[in-house]
Amino acid sequence: MTRIVSSASQMSLGLFLMGAGHHIAAWRLPDAPHGAATSFRHFRQIAQIAEAAKFDMIFFADSASIREFGHSAIGGDERAVRLEPLTLLSALSAATDRIGLVGTASTTYNEPFNLARRFASLDLLSNGRAGWNLVTTSNAEDGPNYSLAEHPHHAERYARAEEFEAVVRGLWHSWQGDDAFPIDKAGGRLFNPDRLHPLKHRGAHFDVRGPLGVPPSAQGHPVIVQAGASDAGREIAARSAEVIFAAHQNFDDAFAFYQDVKTRMARYGRAPDSLRILPGISPFIGRTRDQARAAFDELQALVTHEVGLKMLQPFTGGLDLRDYDPDGPLPDLPPTANAIGRQKLLVDLARRENLTIRQLYLHIAGARGHWQLVGTASDIADELEHYFRNGAADGFNVMPPALPRSLGPITEFLLPELRRRGLFRDEYTGATLRDHLGLPRPDLPAFPQSAA
Amino acid sequence: MTRIVSSASQMSLGLFLMGAGHHIAAWRLPDAPHGAATSFRHFRQIAQIAEAAKFDMIFFADSASIREFGHSAIGGDERAVRLEPLTLLSALSAATDRIGLVGTASTTYNEPFNLARRFASLDLLSNGRAGWNLVTTSNAEDGPNYSLAEHPHHAERYARAEEFEAVVRGLWHSWQGDDAFPIDKAGGRLFNPDRLHPLKHRGAHFDVRGPLGVPPSAQGHPVIVQAGASDAGREIAARSAEVIFAAHQNFDDAFAFYQDVKTRMARYGRAPDSLRILPGISPFIGRTRDQARAAFDELQALVTHEVGLKMLQPFTGGLDLRDYDPDGPLPDLPPTANAIGRQKLLVDLARRENLTIRQLYLHIAGARGHWQLVGTASDIADELEHYFRNGAADGFNVMPPALPRSLGPITEFLLPELRRRGLFRDEYTGATLRDHLGLPRPDLPAFPQSAA
Repeated sequence: MTRIVSSASQMSLGLFLMGAGHHIAAWRLPDAPHGAATSFRHFRQIAQIAEAAKFDMIFFADSASIREFGHSAIGGDERAVRLEPLTLLSALSAATDRIGLVGTASTTYNEPFNLARRFASLDLLSNGRAGWNLVTTSNAEDGPNYSLAEHPHHAERYARAEEFEAVVRGLWHSWQGDDAFPIDKAGGRLFNPDRLHPLKHRGAHFDVRGPLGVPPSAQGHPVIVQAGASDAGREIAARSAEVIFAAHQNFDDAFAFYQDVKTRMARYGRAPDSLRILPGISPFIGRTRDQARAAFDELQALVTHEVGLKMLQPFTGGLDLRDYDPDGPLPDLPPTANAIGRQKLLVDLARRENLTIRQLYLHIAGARGHWQLVGTASDIADELEHYFRNGAADGFNVMPPALPRSLGPITEFLLPELRRRGLFRDEYTGATLRDHLGLPRPDLPAFPQSAA
Repeated sequence: MTRIVSSASQMSLGLFLMGAGHHIAAWRLPDAPHGAATSFRHFRQIAQIAEAAKFDMIFFADSASIREFGHSAIGGDERAVRLEPLTLLSALSAATDRIGLVGTASTTYNEPFNLARRFASLDLLSNGRAGWNLVTTSNAEDGPNYSLAEHPHHAERYARAEEFEAVVRGLWHSWQGDDAFPIDKAGGRLFNPDRLHPLKHRGAHFDVRGPLGVPPSAQGHPVIVQAGASDAGREIAARSAEVIFAAHQNFDDAFAFYQDVKTRMARYGRAPDSLRILPGISPFIGRTRDQARAAFDELQALVTHEVGLKMLQPFTGGLDLRDYDPDGPLPDLPPTANAIGRQKLLVDLARRENLTIRQLYLHIAGARGHWQLVGTASDIADELEHYFRNGAADGFNVMPPALPRSLGPITEFLLPELRRRGLFRDEYTGATLRDHLGLPRPDLPAFPQSAA
């Protein structure tokens, strides 16, 4: 069988930001800023460092509700508080010039017209740097915040997501044609009404007439990012995603996923290069391996038992692990309607590596089931290069364990090592997120704007 | 009868921004920036000028859909394109330090949990400078963008709005108590789960459990602004608004409205000073009256007949004015389910001043039915002072006819004249929007943040 590999010579690198860092205990480090999760200054500092380091994009996850509200451990997890990602990214657009701005927004509890408008607005504000990480809400605790008695099950959420994406994309194509925007002051004609097309979508979930009153940006429309790992998620991604944020523990899984999705794309007439697959990676980097291990151990020691159990709770299908020996094996879990893909990853991991409950939560404390690497820049670059050259990744979404602390080793050790190998850019060569990612620009007219 | 007047010694002044200006033909001026309505640079420049001039706030209206899509005149109205206001305000929060940031968002086509989150996020990002202009969507063309066969009628929209506001306010009170945020790194306790309260709202329109994961800001929660003029709108405002953006053509109407709403507040146990009523005013200012008139005439001459008719269309109840003599009287209009308050204002104006169709649209071309003043800074300051001292206004929402052009006369002539009279601040004395407006801070704990 032919192996599909990236035809690009360089990796795409995103920087996935979260409060005081991805490690669940990062906020407890002495140098962690107070209130990091909601501090604009904190994120502005990090976004500017990321831009100076020439990352393709910064990336934010989202969770509308507070997970496991009422659980006694909640007071120990920074992630109970967070800013709405698009609001935060809009503010960061004004503090940066080149870096891409990707935010997560759910198709389960939003209206497509509203999201299409907001992302298109961010795309214009930022001169073509916006991306939308399209997800469904796996957290069943969100339903009661939206007047729904029952959170929709997985298949229903994905059916809605697929139609949602088609509506948003359609709205982004409301303006078409090179003569859409004459901006003729003398003639009193700002735009050409014949180039403004209603969508007139009628579907199972949505009826949306359009058109959208936000004109296309310098990159046409926002980049569409997806993260689903289930079969339904892969199929939507193969049809419409331009970036996939993936979660894998090892090369074989990453390779199988990459080959599967890139192969599925042919069904939709898409070239493999029109989609960039970026596994998440959480690196603990030291000048030596001992130094890297010490950085890792410092954080692991700060994970309390109650917070650890809380991390596992979304995946246990209602089973309360407090009733089990923390140093015993993970019991069989009832299947959960939510986060099917992520539950499977977790159980596979526990079985494969024969982990106790404590070992399992410590394993995911750093990056919630994403790939964690502890070593020197050279060790880590070896791994990344292996994935990149052999059909398992087009790049990576880097998840710093502690912020801003981890940015030092990433920008001072890891990126220079990748550059020495010719695997990452020295400078931005384009202006938009599509430019950075090497993605094609949709054929849409850009709205003329004065240089001001 | 006792007259209620503002007990503050100085006016509150907002600056209501719109593309190339409030005058419908402003984009045709030779110095109007191209693509002003969607240009971040344009709005950043204006916001920074407004902050230097010590305005209480900048203010953005909203319209989700493109009005009268399909009307042949649409190509001549800049307002067909716009940025979603909260996205834009979030970006502007990063380019300003002190000025308030007020955005319009509809209760008709949003979920209260989502809006509560977004405004609370902007409020944290901006260190307590956010305000929400709560409206219902009067434009019936929005319905088809939200999978609704029929746009809800006025009474239904207001019933939903009232419950929506209560839910949002309740979510903003999710965290309570001075000990809500210990941020105890050593003890592993970031916040106190006992101080996090679910809302458990169950009502006719919404069931919302809460709590909200965005902690309170420096000003507690965003300022609530309202703009409805109908009886239902006034009643909601008397119960819950902290600022009213009003629309009046003359002192008597403004006085009657001010007295009515301030009197209604007593039913809800509210002091008159806990609400600031700000009529809109669109000033054409010159060093001489002739100069002011010339500035006005220059813009009026740029209004085409088709754009003029289009401005009236939302208020005609389906009647097509193209079938009538533009220089004849306004025919009787069928009542419209939408914008009841605004339709009445318009018809009253036409009847009172005996205006032809053309005169009517030219009359509202500058500020859509808001109060328009043409004169010297002294003339205009006389009027504003009269309103302020005699129970018709707590300040004004200033609607520049042309942007950035009109900012010169406002900041160089009008504001200095108001300052000479002791009617407007020289410097900001507080940090939050509530500080600027002199509004009480809700009793909510602020989330500690490092200075960074």
